[in-house]
Formats: sequence, structure tokens, C-alpha cells
Amino acid sequence: MVVSTINGTSPLSHSNGTTIPLSTFSRNSFVNVEKGDPVAFRPYWEKVRDECTVDIKGDEWMSYLGDTNNLCWYMVPQMRDAILRLHNVVDNAVTKDKFLVLGTGSSQLYQALLYALSPSESSHRPINVVAAAPYYSEYKDATDILQSRLFQWTGDAALYDKDEPYIEVVTSPNNPDGTLRVPVVNSGVEGKIIYDLAYYWPQYTPITYQLDHHVMVFTFSKCISHAGSRIGWAFVKDIEVAKKMIRFVQLNSIGVSRESQIRAAKMIGVICYGYKNLKSIEFDHLFFDYCKRLMKERWEKFKGAIEKSKVFTLTKYPTSYCHFNKDLSEQYPGNIFSPMKSENTYSYTAFAWLKCLEGIKDGVSYLEKLKIRTRGGERFGVDAKYVRVSMICTEDEFIELCTRLSNAKRE
Amino acid sequence: MVVSTINGTSPLSHSNGTTIPLSTFSRNSFVNVEKGDPVAFRPYWEKVRDECTVDIKGDEWMSYLGDTNNLCWYMVPQMRDAILRLHNVVDNAVTKDKFLVLGTGSSQLYQALLYALSPSESSHRPINVVAAAPYYSEYKDATDILQSRLFQWTGDAALYDKDEPYIEVVTSPNNPDGTLRVPVVNSGVEGKIIYDLAYYWPQYTPITYQLDHHVMVFTFSKCISHAGSRIGWAFVKDIEVAKKMIRFVQLNSIGVSRESQIRAAKMIGVICYGYKNLKSIEFDHLFFDYCKRLMKERWEKFKGAIEKSKVFTLTKYPTSYCHFNKDLSEQYPGNIFSPMKSENTYSYTAFAWLKCLEGIKDGVSYLEKLKIRTRGGERFGVDAKYVRVSMICTEDEFIELCTRLSNAKRE
Repeated sequence: MVVSTINGTSPLSHSNGTTIPLSTFSRNSFVNVEKGDPVAFRPYWEKVRDECTVDIKGDEWMSYLGDTNNLCWYMVPQMRDAILRLHNVVDNAVTKDKFLVLGTGSSQLYQALLYALSPSESSHRPINVVAAAPYYSEYKDATDILQSRLFQWTGDAALYDKDEPYIEVVTSPNNPDGTLRVPVVNSGVEGKIIYDLAYYWPQYTPITYQLDHHVMVFTFSKCISHAGSRIGWAFVKDIEVAKKMIRFVQLNSIGVSRESQIRAAKMIGVICYGYKNLKSIEFDHLFFDYCKRLMKERWEKFKGAIEKSKVFTLTKYPTSYCHFNKDLSEQYPGNIFSPMKSENTYSYTAFAWLKCLEGIKDGVSYLEKLKIRTRGGERFGVDAKYVRVSMICTEDEFIELCTRLSNAKRE
Repeated sequence: MVVSTINGTSPLSHSNGTTIPLSTFSRNSFVNVEKGDPVAFRPYWEKVRDECTVDIKGDEWMSYLGDTNNLCWYMVPQMRDAILRLHNVVDNAVTKDKFLVLGTGSSQLYQALLYALSPSESSHRPINVVAAAPYYSEYKDATDILQSRLFQWTGDAALYDKDEPYIEVVTSPNNPDGTLRVPVVNSGVEGKIIYDLAYYWPQYTPITYQLDHHVMVFTFSKCISHAGSRIGWAFVKDIEVAKKMIRFVQLNSIGVSRESQIRAAKMIGVICYGYKNLKSIEFDHLFFDYCKRLMKERWEKFKGAIEKSKVFTLTKYPTSYCHFNKDLSEQYPGNIFSPMKSENTYSYTAFAWLKCLEGIKDGVSYLEKLKIRTRGGERFGVDAKYVRVSMICTEDEFIELCTRLSNAKRE
């Protein structure tokens, strides 16, 4: 990867049909780390670009139907098999005895779940939807956009004290702050829990447990990094919940793009092949290890920049023991392909969560002056002193971000 | 195309990754013409399968972003260009001075439009959503699934007499009955109209006018026949409506599959190339002409079967003058590539809409006894005497359907 200078032109632009615009930074242009577009891992996919090529011919994948023998009738068998294989390799979730529901990204599954978990009798009041602050900035609007009578956004789970049914969204590791989360509502009423596990993958966080919850949502975007494919999936224990979700997806979009499914299956296949054939694969072809090393390098560089700035503090991230790396170490002791065996506790989250030091009230405005575009705490249900910064931007954006942060001077 | 016998095995099954199950008809197996899966045109795509092949490499189309210079930021320029080119060839809609909004099929755009056309002040009562019966069977559930406070299904537009704002959905040609439609609500209040033009393509109906409405929705599924791609688009006059639709798609699925967009653009390109290079293209490579001929053959065969059955009557379809075919005829007089020049009035709709003759109250049950699965009138807001039959099923399903209908005897 090449470092761009302030006036330099990014070497990461492509003529191969990718849509990332040519990235040029003049002193006046913004570094946009506001969104969470996971383009950081592109260099890995450049290495394996040909192995991952999919060819789709004119008469293939025409039907609405993916697999009429599956409850999730729009999911093709290749997609199902790839998802199960991926969880088998990473060991982050118990998939047995659960229903697999595919969605057009995890956003669609979030809405499908609100529908499926809400009481269907219209006599009920809307069920309360909560998440502990800081929570993912889109939950509120995604919940309330259609002003449903079935559910309503009620805000911070930590403050929830109603004696009414609720759905708690537990994002772990959390977006924006990377913390590992458990439900926090302490109510006399039984709640329903949605686990949003978008970032529970080895490049971001230790895989501490094989999670086994009733509702677990994952997304291709943050795991594999192809956000444009719009693939998400959920493991659901209760068949009635799964059926309602599938009905929602049917009415909402009559299934999920067949082309995306085929491509996602192929890419997951390449990743899994690497981990199943460790001894014959070059280290930098091991996806999670490659990405984890990249995130580690970024986090070290970023922490240095934050320290220099003397303007922000960083969340203290917990570190835990990672079974995914441990398994690799034990299976291949001393093998060059598991260089992280001694480093099973870490936290390289996809976002940095910064708090302004005393005297700065609005982090976003402060960073705008430095020509850095971020997302402010208020969007996440907390104070404007906080800002979220994407750590999965392009390399040249990241370098420029660190340069500008290092040069920040307290006014 | 090969005709299967009652006990025969379909020769249309494929080993190329398509998901259509091997179609075998024994006396006891059902012919399923209940859904509208547009697989009839597969033989065309088999002919051009290699020209339409898309190759997507591992590092291509990763980002959420399609075109940051476009209001519809998740749409790639190739997709936009292909859609505009297609309408330019067919001449069925005025695209100038309108905003193009892409969706995950037209289903998603339907919901995006209900959101965008509803008053946003929460003090309002839900806006009434109506369509003239018989109307598309999914509108009701798609409108009411989340019990929105913004809009509500109110039923048959012909019966609407409230003095309240409304949205009228005008499907033309109509699903299920193929009629050409105009708005029918006669209310003192100004309504908003959604034109669902899924079937306004030359294989189904004469292209009589270049339509120029404020909201026009199209779908790749029924035009091109790749329903699995989940691509739909809308032309919208009002930028505020377009912006709200895009916001809905963002919260609902963060855009539309990039892989589907790339493939759809390629396939539309192949179709348009044919019509731009008429003299050097074999006739059966002209998509709309190929499909229209197929539909014509089916309709003739089907009418024969219905007459023999003496159990049903068919809707009388209007015929109109088709400018698409006329243009071809005028441009290439006497050319073998426009064999339909003398046939500019026709109606080869995607569904047959049958009415049972006296004495049969429930068309679906009657046809179930003949082992034919259809969708009943009640789903479309009318009497159970009516049934909808898909005319875009596979060839062997269609042949079997006609055989069984011909053999129907009045009990």
C-alpha cells in the first residue's frame, strides 16, 4: 500500500469498474471518514481477484425461486452452504437447530425482525425498541420511518423502565464504540433480544465464544467487505419468527439478488479454502489474518496520532482471548501461517470513538475545521463531544486522517 | 422447444446453475401457474447466453456507493445509461426532466413511493391507498404489513368516495386482467397517482403512447425476465419525492445489489444492440420480437384450450396500435427483421384472467381438481369465480396446462 502526500493523488484508484472515485487530497478537500464503507480490505481482494471471479451466463439464475425445499425459498443452496461453512471455520456462532434467513443486507433483516418479533394483534400498543447508547445511528430512523403501529423507537436501553414488552438490540462489538455488549434492560417484563453481530469477526475482535442466541444477525459487508452486494443473514431459533421474516422479505423485495448470492458464495468459498488448506496457502492469502494485521497497523498509527493531537481521548477497549487465533496456533504450532498465535487479546474495531477533551463541545464541528468529516455523538444517542471515525476507509484516506489529527492544535 | 407428455420428463431442465427444478408431470403432480415467475423467455437467453455473460472479479464493485454525483447515489452509471437506452429503443416513456430511482425490484419502490407520497406531518390521518379491482394481489399486504400511520390500504379505487387525500395505483396493462388503465377515482380531493408499468413492454401489449406521468414504475423481472436479479426503477418528476424514495431505500437496504446492476446493464445492452443493428442481427435475436411471437403462439393455443373446455370465459382484451412495431416497419419496410409490421394491434398479456361459467363458484378449487394451481379472484379484490393463470411459465408447464384445460369437463 502506498502513502499519499497531502497534495498527492491516490494510487488506489482503479480502472477495473470499481466505483471509488480517484482520491485526491488538497489542503481544502475533506477526508470523509463519516460513513462505514468497508473499503480498507480491497488490497486483499486484489490479490485473489481472479480466484474470486464469477461468470454468470445469460440464462442462469433467472427465477425468483432459489430453493423450493428451503423455508427461505429465495436463498440458493450455494449461499446457504457458504454461510454455514464460514461459521464453521470461524466458530463464532452455533448454527445447528436454527433457521437461516437471508436478507438484502442486514438493514432489511433488522426491519424484518421488528415485524416478526412484534405482537401481531392490532389491539397491542407498539412494542418498544431500545438499544444501549451509544447505539448504531440508523436504528432510530429505520425503526420509525414508516411510523408503524407495531413497534416504535424508545431510545437508550439503559434508561428503559417501562412495564411493557420491548425488543432490545444488542450490537456486539458495538457500533460505534467497539465494546462487547450484553442486554442491559432490567425490567419486570420479558424482552426479546436481537443480536447484531456485524463486527463479530476475527479482524475486529477476539472470537471469545461460539454465540448461541435466539436471534443473531450478520452482514457480508463488514465481514467480507463487499458492501455493494447487499447480503445479510440471520440465524433464528423460532420457526414462526423465521416465517414472518421471510414473509416480510417477500413483500419488501421478493427475495435477495441471485447474482449477489452467487458471488458472495464464491468469495466465502475462497476464504474458507484458505483456512482449510493452511499449509499450502501464503499467509497474506488468509483473509482474516490479513485484515487483522491491517487493522492492527492502523490502530497503532491512529493511537499515535490521537496522542499527538492532545485534543481527544479514545475509548478504552477491552481485550479478550480469541479462540479463532488460539485454534490456529494449536493446530499449527510454530507454523509461519499463524503468526498471531501469541496475540489472542486485541480490539481493532471498525470505528474509533473519540471524546473531545474539556473545552470542545462539538467534535464534528471541530474536526470539520481540520477538514475531517465524521459522525457526531448525537446521532448515536449521546453527547456532541463524541465522534465516530471510520477505520475501514481507503489507505490514503486513513493516512491523511492521521496526518491531520497529528497536526491538530488546541485552539 | 419440446413438448412434454403427461408422463414425460421436461427437457428444459438445466445443469447450468439454474434453479428451476426438473419438471416432471405425472397425473398426480400439479401444474403450478399460480405465481408470475417469468421463465417463459429463457430460450431467448439461452441463445445469447455467451454474449450476456458477466465476469465480476474479486475486487470489483465493493463499495456501497455507485455514483456520488447522482442523487440516486447507489446506482452505477452503467445501470442508469442502460435504462435510459432501453426506453429510448422502446419509446414507451418520457424520461427527460425526471429523476431515476433504482430499487430492489419494483416491490421496494412501491413501499418507497407510499412513504414518499404520504404527508410527513404526524398529525395527518393515514393517506388512503387504492387501486381499481381486480388489482395486483400483493398491494394490500405490501401496504399494510407494518400497519403504518402514514398510509393504509383502502381497497377498490372504483368505490372510493371519501373526501380525503389518496394515492391511486394504476397498473397498466393491469395485473391480473391485462386491461389498459387510467385513474378512476372521482373525488373532490386531489390524488397522487403511481403508474405501475411492469407490463408496458412490446411482448405483452402495443406501445401506444410514450407515457409521461409524474411517477412511473418499471421492473426488470417482467420486461427482461430475470426476476432473480431484483431490479426495478422509477421515473419521478418531483425531486422531493425522489429524495424521500432514496432515503427509504437507504434505510431499507442501503441501496441495490451492485452485481445485479452490472448484469442487468449488460443484458439490456445486448437487447438494445439488436434493435440498433437490425440488419445484421438474426430475427430470433431480437428480444421483444422473439418474446412477442412466443406469447402470441401461447395465447392462440390457450384460447383454443379454453374454448374446448366450455368451463371458462376469457377477458376481452382491447387491442391498440403499437408504435414500437410501427416504427420498426417504417424504418425497415419489407425487411425480414420486422415480421410483425402488419400486426400492430394485439394483447398478449402475461396472465390469463378466467371467469368460471354459471354453476362454478370457486375457480381455484375447480382447477385444483384438474391439478392446476392458480390464484383466485378474492386475492385480487373480486369474486372467487375469477382465477389468474400465468402465461409466462415454462413451456412444458404451459403445454400441460393447455392439455388439462382442454380435457376439462363440466361436472
